[in-house]
Amino acid sequence: MHTFRFVESRTRVRYKDTDQMGIAHHSNYIVWFEVGRTDLCREAGFTYREIEESGYLLVVVEINCSYRTPYRYDEEVLIRTAIEEAGSRAMRFRYELVSADGSDMRASGFSRHFWLDRETRRPVVAPQHLLQPFVPFLPSRAQ
Amino acid sequence: MHTFRFVESRTRVRYKDTDQMGIAHHSNYIVWFEVGRTDLCREAGFTYREIEESGYLLVVVEINCSYRTPYRYDEEVLIRTAIEEAGSRAMRFRYELVSADGSDMRASGFSRHFWLDRETRRPVVAPQHLLQPFVPFLPSRAQ
Amino acid sequence: MHTFRFVESRTRVRYKDTDQMGIAHHSNYIVWFEVGRTDLCREAGFTYREIEESGYLLVVVEINCSYRTPYRYDEEVLIRTAIEEAGSRAMRFRYELVSADGSDMRASGFSRHFWLDRETRRPVVAPQHLLQPFVPFLPSRAQ
Amino acid sequence: MHTFRFVESRTRVRYKDTDQMGIAHHSNYIVWFEVGRTDLCREAGFTYREIEESGYLLVVVEINCSYRTPYRYDEEVLIRTAIEEAGSRAMRFRYELVSADGSDMRASGFSRHFWLDRETRRPVVAPQHLLQPFVPFLPSRAQ
Repeated sequence: MHTFRFVESRTRVRYKDTDQMGIAHHSNYIVWFEVGRTDLCREAGFTYREIEESGYLLVVVEINCSYRTPYRYDEEVLIRTAIEEAGSRAMRFRYELVSADGSDMRASGFSRHFWLDRETRRPVVAPQHLLQPFVPFLPSRAQ
Repeated sequence: MHTFRFVESRTRVRYKDTDQMGIAHHSNYIVWFEVGRTDLCREAGFTYREIEESGYLLVVVEINCSYRTPYRYDEEVLIRTAIEEAGSRAMRFRYELVSADGSDMRASGFSRHFWLDRETRRPVVAPQHLLQPFVPFLPSRAQ
Repeated sequence: MHTFRFVESRTRVRYKDTDQMGIAHHSNYIVWFEVGRTDLCREAGFTYREIEESGYLLVVVEINCSYRTPYRYDEEVLIRTAIEEAGSRAMRFRYELVSADGSDMRASGFSRHFWLDRETRRPVVAPQHLLQPFVPFLPSRAQ
Repeated sequence: MHTFRFVESRTRVRYKDTDQMGIAHHSNYIVWFEVGRTDLCREAGFTYREIEESGYLLVVVEINCSYRTPYRYDEEVLIRTAIEEAGSRAMRFRYELVSADGSDMRASGFSRHFWLDRETRRPVVAPQHLLQPFVPFLPSRAQ
């Protein structure tokens, strides 16, 4: 069993995010995942902007989201983001979208990413200085 | 082995869809899936708008997308949408996003949906008149 | 001369908000205006959600935005929102988008709105209980 | 009096474009303007992508939109785009959003743009080969 170390972000459902069902459109969840990923990087000690500036891209190769209970306009969204894998070839993040008080899981999902060279746009082996900051966020294996 | 019956839609990558990597942001693919779903319904003989007007909602319960080669600004996107399952409780669609000439698969994915009563927002058994139009689009089993 | 009473909101430029120029796409500013409007309502003592629930809609009839210096990915956006007019027929909001430290005006604009009856979707005279909360936010005329 | 030469584009209101009022959210109109601008460039004989590739950017400095009658989900949007000014420093486009049959004006607006050098991001004088293609689209002055 793994224990994940979640980083928390908060946002609110904007009017623009709603659709004619009166709920937040499902495509917004993918953007909220990205907000969580950005905040996890920041908490790890560098920004995703710095990753790009140092010559690397972390491109999305797969996205998955399961939806349980919808969010409504102006409702607060608690985004919980964790790292499942931090490899020199690929990364995998896990997300939980929760009600503001943390009691009710609304959706969950994951994203898989490859490291690319920013110039060639080809897969690369990410350097240690990019991976090192993620180590404290790796899941711990419970005894 | 199954043979899917794909319905084709076309759109273009808008400037708004690009991100600072110079490619279409991955969240747009989820919206393109929806464009495909809308067109498949239309081709089946009724619009998704009519589904809602007749008192039902087809809500998304899972989304998955795998990304291969990105789209660039102003590039044409060929969306191919098929039905994998059309049940009275749940539906499952399959998507392929292809280069304009059809030669190059750029991404693929699926979505799962539940039928809800529009008023109560609770799962329902969809009536036959809603499912019947999808029958010709169901995958055929190859011998 | 008028002195406006601004309500402040903060958001960050998401990766999704960037375009291939490497800046926040101009359409996001319109959404940020809406975030500011929502927060001004909340600060006035009720939420825009409550306006709708009480049977009224505040629809946009005109939007204007002037752009000076762009925002970049992950930059904080300070949204300053004020009321220019709060009439029983129409409202007018004013917006300033500023750098995080408040020193640099990046964009400014306004929006005009009509009050509609939520059912008929026709213009109505908004009741006093909807307008009263906005009074403290009306611009004061300097001597 | 001026006669504008409009280029026509068509799109449809996507489910994602709707909001909880059951209409297309007003921010989408700004994106539809951009679709029209892209198509006008294409019709003039080059793509906006080529403008950028030749070292120039056409950045938005002002956006204005007036909203009359909303669009609903799945409704076709006829975008009519014209050039009001094509100067070596600045451009100005005009937009009309119309019902699919052309009978009913739903919204109208304009955008103003500056020419920038793509590298320095500073205002430049656009070269004649960039402006020439727009000449046939300039408004004609009626006698």
